[in-house]
Amino acid sequence: MSAVTRVRMAYARIEATDRPEIWIDLRPRSEAEEEARGIDERVAAGERLPLAGRLFAVKGNIDVGGLPTTAGCPAYAYTPEVDAPVVARLRAVGAIVLGTTNLDQFATGLVGTRSPYGAVRGALDPDRVSGGSSSGSAVAVALGIVDFALGTDTAGSGRVPAAFNGIVGLKPTRGLVPTAGVVPACASLDCVTVFARTLPEAERVLAQMASPPGRDLPALPQRLPGPWRVAVPPTAQLGDLDEGWAQAYETAVERLVAAGAEVSTLDLTVFTEAAEMLYGGAFVAERYAAVGSFVDKLLSEGGAGLDPTVAGIITRSRDIPAHQVFADQERLDGLRARALAELGDADALLLPTAPGHPTLAEVAADPLGANARLGRFTNSTNLFDLAAVAVPAGPTPSGAPFGVMLIGRAFTDERLAHIARLLQPPLRIAVVGAHLSGQPLNPQLLSLGAELERTTTTAPVYRLYALSTTPPKPGLVHVGPEEGGAVETEVWRLPAEGLGRLLDALPRPMALGRVELADGSDVPGFLCEPAALEGAQDITDLGGWRAHLRAED
Amino acid sequence: MSAVTRVRMAYARIEATDRPEIWIDLRPRSEAEEEARGIDERVAAGERLPLAGRLFAVKGNIDVGGLPTTAGCPAYAYTPEVDAPVVARLRAVGAIVLGTTNLDQFATGLVGTRSPYGAVRGALDPDRVSGGSSSGSAVAVALGIVDFALGTDTAGSGRVPAAFNGIVGLKPTRGLVPTAGVVPACASLDCVTVFARTLPEAERVLAQMASPPGRDLPALPQRLPGPWRVAVPPTAQLGDLDEGWAQAYETAVERLVAAGAEVSTLDLTVFTEAAEMLYGGAFVAERYAAVGSFVDKLLSEGGAGLDPTVAGIITRSRDIPAHQVFADQERLDGLRARALAELGDADALLLPTAPGHPTLAEVAADPLGANARLGRFTNSTNLFDLAAVAVPAGPTPSGAPFGVMLIGRAFTDERLAHIARLLQPPLRIAVVGAHLSGQPLNPQLLSLGAELERTTTTAPVYRLYALSTTPPKPGLVHVGPEEGGAVETEVWRLPAEGLGRLLDALPRPMALGRVELADGSDVPGFLCEPAALEGAQDITDLGGWRAHLRAED
Repeated sequence: MSAVTRVRMAYARIEATDRPEIWIDLRPRSEAEEEARGIDERVAAGERLPLAGRLFAVKGNIDVGGLPTTAGCPAYAYTPEVDAPVVARLRAVGAIVLGTTNLDQFATGLVGTRSPYGAVRGALDPDRVSGGSSSGSAVAVALGIVDFALGTDTAGSGRVPAAFNGIVGLKPTRGLVPTAGVVPACASLDCVTVFARTLPEAERVLAQMASPPGRDLPALPQRLPGPWRVAVPPTAQLGDLDEGWAQAYETAVERLVAAGAEVSTLDLTVFTEAAEMLYGGAFVAERYAAVGSFVDKLLSEGGAGLDPTVAGIITRSRDIPAHQVFADQERLDGLRARALAELGDADALLLPTAPGHPTLAEVAADPLGANARLGRFTNSTNLFDLAAVAVPAGPTPSGAPFGVMLIGRAFTDERLAHIARLLQPPLRIAVVGAHLSGQPLNPQLLSLGAELERTTTTAPVYRLYALSTTPPKPGLVHVGPEEGGAVETEVWRLPAEGLGRLLDALPRPMALGRVELADGSDVPGFLCEPAALEGAQDITDLGGWRAHLRAED
Repeated sequence: MSAVTRVRMAYARIEATDRPEIWIDLRPRSEAEEEARGIDERVAAGERLPLAGRLFAVKGNIDVGGLPTTAGCPAYAYTPEVDAPVVARLRAVGAIVLGTTNLDQFATGLVGTRSPYGAVRGALDPDRVSGGSSSGSAVAVALGIVDFALGTDTAGSGRVPAAFNGIVGLKPTRGLVPTAGVVPACASLDCVTVFARTLPEAERVLAQMASPPGRDLPALPQRLPGPWRVAVPPTAQLGDLDEGWAQAYETAVERLVAAGAEVSTLDLTVFTEAAEMLYGGAFVAERYAAVGSFVDKLLSEGGAGLDPTVAGIITRSRDIPAHQVFADQERLDGLRARALAELGDADALLLPTAPGHPTLAEVAADPLGANARLGRFTNSTNLFDLAAVAVPAGPTPSGAPFGVMLIGRAFTDERLAHIARLLQPPLRIAVVGAHLSGQPLNPQLLSLGAELERTTTTAPVYRLYALSTTPPKPGLVHVGPEEGGAVETEVWRLPAEGLGRLLDALPRPMALGRVELADGSDVPGFLCEPAALEGAQDITDLGGWRAHLRAED
């Protein structure tokens, strides 16, 4: 599809989704189309543009040439002539910016409600917060408006909104991606981050953003192939989680174990202790260093467009004495040494991205408390100079989005993404005919890495027909409790990535749909098209396909 | 499923597949069941065994305690008391050996036919060779008898059979996996390898086989996240390939590019030059050092059970002078330096695993020539001390299996496996209703990373019904050319790993099957169960779901 068509579809989608709070400045459609036309022409002329026609949104604290950089505060706005280097790198390889997105003012918050441009509602549940501070960027991705978006992450702003909106958030190692052209929150900790709907997409984008190699890099501990080693805290150390979240976290741990990872236990207290230092000690004064004098001046003029919670956090840090910075830094150094010792030879620490997902009303009732809770697991990452990947690992038992983070040593960004892929759930699939063990199409399942989980029957609501296909196959048809019987069934576990090949090899008239099993559960399974039933023999009463084959012999 | 059940199913499958040439010594079923029972009990007692109940086969040149080690030559057989360390490591974590497998005698060959235990036929096409020398191991995996198998690789014996049988072959860096208890082919080059049907399974197994860290390791060049860099040769340098193989290779290159990899060109001649040194120079004398005096003695006694081609290769190397080894080594050192310079900062070299797939008859007609051709791309890997991953990348245009290799610097085994995942093809899927752009279920597609490829119609052989579902959905039914019409359709490209989640979220009565398009192609797409059609309104003549919605408004 051409870049121009992609742009047109995105603007139609912006209209259809009706979430005006996502954007601070949206580019005129004609301008984006014009840029897209240029990309299409370059591609047609044979130029290789790795992100040709990919659409992205940029958090409102990152410079996009010609659009105001607001940092979520209208009075702060300035209009840069050139893109931040990170934006320029993406545009240079064909990606197209649609606009700048809403954020917690001055990137100070994890909620997405601290903005005079409006509170950003969750993409999947508009009664809950989007998470922040990169709120608009995350929701624009989650709603399918753009392919990816840039955020920033100091306390967790590139990860918490990923978890709340069911998408991927990459928080690269500090220094890997340039932060020039970004309004600082805590300049020494800030990272530019990527949101995308899939991990491969996010990795592709990060690949184009990272600084070119050639400079001196810290040595990485050499790693021989071996089971991935993942550290997890004792459940009690996770503290109070929303209902069902502990269970969702356990499921993620189990998936890693099932995928062959070695799980060890680590003491999380040193991480949560450090987390409290981000806002609770002297480090918050770095925010005053960034924008404090501006906030003071604006307050003296009436404070129009200042978020009161954000302004309070920044101005309260004005009087923190310098010596406390040194004391805190010394304490943090000690905690960091202990944290790395806790991590030991683990490749990653697995944590819930956040402890829970508050509603807009809950945040309004307790702006500081609700926000502080959200950073429990994310706040220490940049203080400790670690890398992190946030991925969906839901849903929770109640069907809500749930996300986890893999956190690892600096510059292990790729390794974390590799491990994150193991979190994909396997799929169950019910077979009743030629894919049964020992039948002609069973090798197809095996070649995709499938494994037999159990033998059972369908719920007694199906009829089974012998179709006139080659090789002979049965057709399973849902008819309801009055007319149906139970049919012999095998349930196989299939790696998610194998299903594509199975479906691609599926011949007409076979189809995949949902099959009800004897125990009342339902799983994807083989059905058939209606037309195939014409003249087919009803073999339900034999109890299954194998019994039919025996009867035929 | 219990380990005991898995063993029982494997023996049933051995019987059903009827390929006696796979095995040299198969353990009695009762003995394997007994071992499986022990594993089941340990798991039930809470022990954590990462490969509990995984079944494997071991190439006949690797020691399995209590089974004869034959190296494919009955007269050579000895029965070791203990397992080779690599076998012991796998059994220690719960994997169960079913037996030893057939091979090109003394691991000398890439064909799979050079054995007094019988020529091993290809798993998918029994008229073609299985590839070798790890022939039985590869076919046992490909036919779904075992979960994985061990091979060895000196010239390409762990990769060529993977390509010919549509499975994965990991050829680890030399020294990463111990070769104690393995009958040497060229002792300084031999590697123990893993075959499996999927990459994650192979990686899990390799993780358990690799030597524990702690010893001095060579420094790896540090790598910042960036697009994977893959080197490919000019097509002309691939030489004569089987029909359609060049096209299949180009498709693999295109998939890497589409997945964001940067592809550069390299001069392959230095690799193919070195490849010819493995059998064409002095290095072949290392085979005489391993088993030459045994072969000489056996020949003097009549040569019973010796493969004449293998015996010829080994005995002809007896008189190569020592000084030629030094001259060849010096030449190889020079070629290796040039090869690493050609590789430059590329993460991997992508090559077809083999140039073609001969029939049993072709190999019989020209045993040396047919074999030499097969090693064109694999022979240099171990000489240059590189790591390699062989994965299916087929089929060829004629539907035959086709495999490619990613070859990289020593100890980049994990990186190669990571890149190999990009070779998975995306899937096309046809949607006609609620998943169309802008319709209520379209976000589901977007969240899985799907992208609209084009808008078209079905072939005029369908009827479309408005079903009484919530949200309203249409049902597409194949009726044939007399009664059918063309229905508005969008074709989306979906990452293979996203399909599982789509199918898992599919509600009854929807189903996925194959949909014929206006241009005569057919792709997977949405259909529905027959029962849903009862009382549904036929809306075919409106031309599509959107037209129906407009008419309803």
